[in-house]
Amino acid sequence: MADRRTVIVEAALLGANDERAADNRRRFAACGVTVVNLLSSPGSGKTTLLARTLADLGPRLRSAVIVGDLATDLDAQRLRAAGIDAVQIATGGTCHLEAGMVAEAAGRLDLTALDLLVIENVGNLVCPASFDLGEAVRVVLVSVTEGEDKPLKYPVAFKSAHAAAVTKIDLATVTGFDRDRALAAIRAVAPQAALFEVSARTGDGLDGWYRYLMAEVDRRAGRVRR
Amino acid sequence: MADRRTVIVEAALLGANDERAADNRRRFAACGVTVVNLLSSPGSGKTTLLARTLADLGPRLRSAVIVGDLATDLDAQRLRAAGIDAVQIATGGTCHLEAGMVAEAAGRLDLTALDLLVIENVGNLVCPASFDLGEAVRVVLVSVTEGEDKPLKYPVAFKSAHAAAVTKIDLATVTGFDRDRALAAIRAVAPQAALFEVSARTGDGLDGWYRYLMAEVDRRAGRVRR
Repeated sequence: MADRRTVIVEAALLGANDERAADNRRRFAACGVTVVNLLSSPGSGKTTLLARTLADLGPRLRSAVIVGDLATDLDAQRLRAAGIDAVQIATGGTCHLEAGMVAEAAGRLDLTALDLLVIENVGNLVCPASFDLGEAVRVVLVSVTEGEDKPLKYPVAFKSAHAAAVTKIDLATVTGFDRDRALAAIRAVAPQAALFEVSARTGDGLDGWYRYLMAEVDRRAGRVRR
Repeated sequence: MADRRTVIVEAALLGANDERAADNRRRFAACGVTVVNLLSSPGSGKTTLLARTLADLGPRLRSAVIVGDLATDLDAQRLRAAGIDAVQIATGGTCHLEAGMVAEAAGRLDLTALDLLVIENVGNLVCPASFDLGEAVRVVLVSVTEGEDKPLKYPVAFKSAHAAAVTKIDLATVTGFDRDRALAAIRAVAPQAALFEVSARTGDGLDGWYRYLMAEVDRRAGRVRR
């Protein structure tokens, strides 16, 4: 009985979330802002990659970040210290962001003044994948330190991603990372995803990632890059 | 409305889980088996630490593992390859193990022949913390590669743990891990937890971890270690 009610309520919740996500998507499109939903395990390097990416692209791109965590505003502090406009959502225990939370946080930003809005989701490779936030682009990260099998073990996040990035590749040798096995796992689960291998520390692989992001922004803004 | 129903159903679900967890706990106690619930992010090294721990303690300890993942039986395969008896639960998308799943999996083991049963939970630093499985000991892992702030950002798992272990300490130098800050974060959130720093690769710190586990087993088995 509890199981049955759960299914019903889950469907209702996801339905309500989908409606709000559709509202968000219309609002983002009207403002010409490209919205990226960034998913990964805790500690895969979301904030570090974002801080470097948005600092490096800063001269060419007006950007902001909405960041979700169960508790603390540590990530927003880190991003602001890197000169990035950031709004923190503290979910108070909820394991994922929902479209309504994002709508509220987005209300604190001038969307018309932005080219790119990144939503850094709660660190969780499972639950955030089930909640559309109204994003245009979903990106999943997996670090070399997590092991090569994660796409197979946590397929939902990878299946729903437009792009996947292997992070911390500067640690590949010391961790004994099996690159071929990891890339094969991503391609098996997420053949649709653009694939990047990056190190925010050394800068390796960032050029391709930046080109992808800029192309997504340009496509939506309907203009040629400066 | 949806929110209100959710709260009711969540409470009902957790209540039903608690009842089954209490059943599990009585059954485990009657069999004299110490049950550990192991929580962490994906890729913190749960399986690697378990494989080494149970292999090293093998001569002194009869053990088995119940391992949960959304998909695949890769972890059970890895454990079996290390000579460890393992039962895989594939949750099919559910982000945590529940007491009922554990009861079913435990039915496939001879509990009376075990000193220690480890339940390796789904890799997720959020949701598993809310579900009692009937364990006697809850252990949370966090690897040096995840960064020092994780206990502050994901407090629930740490607050509910009897022990916390920092894993992959062989990578501390190369990752620039700030040990003092990490230990302070764990102590701030989880002052009750026994604290270990380990590397399953080099063996550093494992002695203390093994002594803790063996003391827990001995306490429940009511006998002196061989």
